[in-house]
Amino acid sequence: MKLAASIAAAGLALAFAGSAAAQSFQKPEDAIKYRRAAFTVLGAHFGPLGAMANGRIPFDARAAAHHGEVVAVVASLPWHGFVAGSDKGDTRARGEIWSDAAKFKASSDRMQAEMQKLAAASKTGNLDNLKAAFATAGGTCKSCHDDFRRD
Amino acid sequence: MKLAASIAAAGLALAFAGSAAAQSFQKPEDAIKYRRAAFTVLGAHFGPLGAMANGRIPFDARAAAHHGEVVAVVASLPWHGFVAGSDKGDTRARGEIWSDAAKFKASSDRMQAEMQKLAAASKTGNLDNLKAAFATAGGTCKSCHDDFRRD
Repeated sequence: MKLAASIAAAGLALAFAGSAAAQSFQKPEDAIKYRRAAFTVLGAHFGPLGAMANGRIPFDARAAAHHGEVVAVVASLPWHGFVAGSDKGDTRARGEIWSDAAKFKASSDRMQAEMQKLAAASKTGNLDNLKAAFATAGGTCKSCHDDFRRD
Repeated sequence: MKLAASIAAAGLALAFAGSAAAQSFQKPEDAIKYRRAAFTVLGAHFGPLGAMANGRIPFDARAAAHHGEVVAVVASLPWHGFVAGSDKGDTRARGEIWSDAAKFKASSDRMQAEMQKLAAASKTGNLDNLKAAFATAGGTCKSCHDDFRRD
């Protein structure tokens, strides 16, 4: 409750970005913390899908469906945290996220689309489907990291 | 609506997630990072619902539904991060989480149930429904923090 209360007390307001209700953050640090947390959760569910796709852990259809569904929801979240002024601080975000915002949006849109396909594939109970979708989805992660994340 | 559809499907997956879909972490630190990230994301969506319920920001039915839907999915996640051995490190988790695991599970189960009710209330477009559900859900946060989180 304390965290939620502090966020509310900090004056967290709402804004619309396209069709989604987005956060707006009182401080850039809050936005950075939010997007990093969303990526952490995303990675923790994307990772096991990759481990199954690459044979590092056994394919488990039920677990795959679970991870894919979480990925499908959480993949839409971190983008709201790339607010103006959040290019400095505890972040590896490159300035190109803001200076080439159209390219960043296109990149994040591709990623989200592929994550939806990954979620769909993860529900088929078919490892080959998962392998194919994971490879493409993983490519969108790498491409965006290459362009927009510092090493 | 893509997100809503994803969440509806995720609800099905989460309903029978059980142990098969639980995370497995390489190191206790990874589990701590995961659960903290999940709570951060949760708070960032729970917070605005509280701000609406308490009149600090205007009620916005579409935003409320969005936040409630994210809360409904993410509220189920952090619990997988309370693995054995993750009582030390960058965490405020009390030892009672493990030494009184049954009580902790009951507490987290109550929280998740109330978060599902909050999500349902957030979709009604009715502020009074949101107020009532938020108060109860917030009570489950506070109760669990009082019992299981260090100040």
